[in-house]
Parts: sequence; structure tokens; C-alpha cells
Amino acid sequence: MLKIDSKDCMIAMTDFTAWSLEIQRRTEQTLDHLLPPTNIAPERLHDAMRYAVLGGGKRVRALLAHAAGALCAADANKLDIAASAVEMIHAYSLVHDDMPCMDDDDLRRGKPSCHKQYDDATALLVGDALQTLAFQTLATAEQRLDFTAEQQLKMLSTLAIASGSRGMAGGQAIDLASVGKELTQLELEYMHIHKTGALIRASALLGAYCAEQEDLAKIAAIHQYSEAIGLAFQVVDDILDTEADTATLGKTAGKDADSNKPTYVTILGITRAKALANELHENALAALQPFGDEASRLRQLALFIMQRSF
Amino acid sequence: MLKIDSKDCMIAMTDFTAWSLEIQRRTEQTLDHLLPPTNIAPERLHDAMRYAVLGGGKRVRALLAHAAGALCAADANKLDIAASAVEMIHAYSLVHDDMPCMDDDDLRRGKPSCHKQYDDATALLVGDALQTLAFQTLATAEQRLDFTAEQQLKMLSTLAIASGSRGMAGGQAIDLASVGKELTQLELEYMHIHKTGALIRASALLGAYCAEQEDLAKIAAIHQYSEAIGLAFQVVDDILDTEADTATLGKTAGKDADSNKPTYVTILGITRAKALANELHENALAALQPFGDEASRLRQLALFIMQRSF
Repeated sequence: MLKIDSKDCMIAMTDFTAWSLEIQRRTEQTLDHLLPPTNIAPERLHDAMRYAVLGGGKRVRALLAHAAGALCAADANKLDIAASAVEMIHAYSLVHDDMPCMDDDDLRRGKPSCHKQYDDATALLVGDALQTLAFQTLATAEQRLDFTAEQQLKMLSTLAIASGSRGMAGGQAIDLASVGKELTQLELEYMHIHKTGALIRASALLGAYCAEQEDLAKIAAIHQYSEAIGLAFQVVDDILDTEADTATLGKTAGKDADSNKPTYVTILGITRAKALANELHENALAALQPFGDEASRLRQLALFIMQRSF
Repeated sequence: MLKIDSKDCMIAMTDFTAWSLEIQRRTEQTLDHLLPPTNIAPERLHDAMRYAVLGGGKRVRALLAHAAGALCAADANKLDIAASAVEMIHAYSLVHDDMPCMDDDDLRRGKPSCHKQYDDATALLVGDALQTLAFQTLATAEQRLDFTAEQQLKMLSTLAIASGSRGMAGGQAIDLASVGKELTQLELEYMHIHKTGALIRASALLGAYCAEQEDLAKIAAIHQYSEAIGLAFQVVDDILDTEADTATLGKTAGKDADSNKPTYVTILGITRAKALANELHENALAALQPFGDEASRLRQLALFIMQRSF
């Protein structure tokens, strides 16, 4: 377990809480602005898109974009665009993952999932249109802010590669194929690096790419940090799925174990899973070691991700 | 009915057939190159993506990109990239539209539709990953060819706007909401302008944007042409759905009428529907009137779209 002075830690986390609330507020406001209004046709689709995106979630990916952006001294208004795009991709993936032909989950963020609140066809189109809107947001970002075309292209290609068949969507396919199978820790890691890790890394990188100047040492650190923290996030998720109840999670607890999906807890046991999470946390912090206060948001965010569970 | 000298027409169409076969071959080859190989994980997803995209279809959108590109003297290798991106978006929309929660169609291009050949979850991910790959292709196009970043962004934003909730996905939502309803011709037109028209127009525009220099008069003509031909395409589709059999169509005939969907034939009757298709054809040709031989591919393509049915 990492040794962190508890008083320093408390002060840091109070400051982090205020910061994260502010980022969540900004992200919500930007998304509200970018999503089509419900008085424009097709009204029901737009209503469902807003239902799926707004008013919930910890916005971990938006926090990551902003924290990585802070390390690179990027403009906060630009970071809002990057953060909104990754949150749209995340929201689309949740809507499709919850559908009956995938994980068949009725609950999301404490509310009926999109296909339960609307219908399957609408949920399918909501996911499709949210993915498109994420790319549209980045492709038209210069109309709002002073991005260079090269910056936009870098964000677009990074987000696309992270979301596609060699990233998030591919990870979901591997996840589906693994139901009922015995996986090794390596195979499980491979699945998660794609299913959740790729988008988490892209979130941090998009934040870095919002900066005026590219600092290769910082980008390398963000790579290492976000790979470690992306995997830690998933290990913590598996621990939460075992230990927390449905009310706390806002989604159906024990779902993965019930559906016979391999998790870090089923493969390693709870004690070794927690030790792995701590080890990944240390790796993430090690990547930030060369940097001072400018990396403090990333350090706090790592701690926040760890403290979700224990 | 348009008066076209039948001998001239035959020569033109023989030339067009050779050209379109060549574009289809190039498009197939480019798509084959851009799609992930089946020996890379996740293998089954990549296999299904290739199944959904390769080896079929008239590639009308690729032909449009190349024909509009010919008007603007764009490089054919660049046009292959634009054509492949729009064909990927089209293929993703077919995979999702065929799913049980949407149109529930078992047959596509004379083969089992993607969810019948694989399964619903795979088909969902295939559509998702194909959409992503379309944007990835445009965002990374400069790695293959000498695109400017501004050209790429223009193609990306045009394709995204045409595909999203105010374009293709929105049109599909309006279509679903219209089942069992009596629509006016105006309401039906509104639906089709979004559902199929937006992507058809984007296909032609992406072709134009591949050119070194933007010619505003030509782009305005391509706008007018592609709006007319996009709608004509749909009217012809409705006529085909009534008159052709399943073997000819490669998809289930009479499906729209059976599922109580409004079509141009149910609203106007077959005679007036054919007259409307001819009128739209004339509008498309009128847009090309200021241009000479450089517009001949677009003229031939308009005729080809009309001749699909009668």
C-alpha cells in the first residue's frame, strides 16, 4: 500500500473534489450545448441522446482529459471539447453495451438504461448518432476555438483508433467471446486494455494534444500513467462489482460474476486483486515522478480512482 | 420522359459500364486494404466486418464520389479514400438497419444479413466499428496520400454531419416513427432527404473536396445534382420494391409495403412515382448544364440510377 500522509492527502482531496465538481459542471454544460436540442426533429432521438449523456456519471474520462491537459498547460476551453468528445464515445458504448443482445442491463447510473426508457431501435440509433457526434465535435472544433487543423486531426485519429475494432469495440467483442471461458490474467488484461483502457488512454492524450506545443516527455509520461490507471480502474471496477451493492453502483451489482464473466476477483481472489490495483497505482505515480505541481491533478485523479472502492 | 438519342446513349452507357466496373474494382481493393485482416484479433469481428463490406453492392456512393471528383479534376487515388469512407458508413447503416430491433431483414445483397450470418451482438459491434473506421480512414488519410489537413477536416465534418442525428441516423429514426402512419409526400421527402439523401450528397461532396482547388460553381452544381439524384434514387427504390422480385433485388421484395411503411408508390401510385423520378432526373441534369465533358460521368451515373428499374 502506498504511504501517503493522511493530512496532506485530505487537503489535496478537498481541493481535488472542488476541481472535479467544476470539471463535471463544465463538461455537462459543454455537452448540453453540443447535443442537438429536443425541439429539433427527430425530437425523440434527440431526447434519448440527451438522456443517455447528460445528468450522470463521474466523468472520469473528462477529468482525465483536463488533468492531462493541466500537465501540458492546455487551454481549459479547448479541453472542454476534447472531454465532451470522449464522454460521447463512452456514453454511446454504454448505450449499446446495455442492449439485450449485449449485456442486457436494465439499469445505468441509477436510471433505466436507454433501451428500457425508450426502445431497442432508438437505443441503437442513439449510440450510432452519439459516436458520429463525437467525431463531428472534433472535426468542427475550430469553429468554436482556435485549434489548428493538425491538432484536430491528431485528436480525431487518436479517438478513432481507440474506439474501433482494435480498441474499445474490439475489446467488447473479446469480452463477449470470453463469457463462460477460463481466462488467464494475461488474457483478461488484453481484453481490458482494449475494452476500457484504450479510451481512457485516448482521453488523457486528447487532453495533451489540446496544448499549443507538444512536449514529448510529458506525452510519454501520460502514455505510461494512463495505461496503468486504465487497468487499475478496471481492477477496482471488478472489486466494486463484488463488494458494493446495486444502490451504490447505480448499475446491477454482481452482474459479471452472475453472467459467468471472468474478472480480476475471480482469477486472482480479492486480496491479490487489491494488491494489483495498488501496484498499478504506484506505476501511474512513477510516470509522473519527473514532474512537479503541474502533475498534481493527475496524481489526485489516480487516488480518486483508487478510492472508489477501498 | 427525357429525350436521349438511343445510339449515343448506348455508346455512353457501354463506356460508363467499363468505368463503373473499374471504380467498383478499385473501391473493393481499397476497402480490402483498409479493413483489418482476419488474422488479427478480434478475428471474428474482423471477419464479420469484411463480410458486411466486401464482395457486393453497386457501390453507388463510391461511383458518385469518383464522378463528382472527375468534374473537379481530383486525383483518383484520393477519391478511393473518400469513396471507401462513404461505403463504410453505408455498410454500417445496412448492418444496423437489418437487425431484429430495426427492419429485421434476413437477406442483404443476396446473402444472409450480418446478424443472421454471425449474431446480433457481433452485428451491433460490426456497425459500430465500421462507422469508426470510416472516420479513422479520413483522419489518417494523409499517411497514404498528399491530403492537406484542411481537406481532411472538411471531409470529416461533411461526412459526420451527413451521418448523424440530423442526417442518416435521424432519417432512420423518422422512418421508424412513420411505420403505420399516413405521410404526405412532403413528409416522405423530408424523411428520405435525411435517411438516404444526406449520405448520397456527402459522397459527391467528398469527391469534390479531394480536388486541389475548390471550385465554388462546381460545388454548388454538385449540391443541386446530388439532392435531386438522391431523391430519385429513393423513388426508384420504392418502384423496385413494388415491381422487382427478391432474386433481382438481393433483398426481400415487397418488404416496405408489407411492413406498412409509406413509400412513393403507396402515396403517389406507380405512374406518378415514375413521373417524379423522371422530373428529378431532369433537375439533376439541369445542374450540370454549364459543364461539358467533365460532367459526363455524373450524367451517366444519373441515367444508371434511373435505369435500375425502368
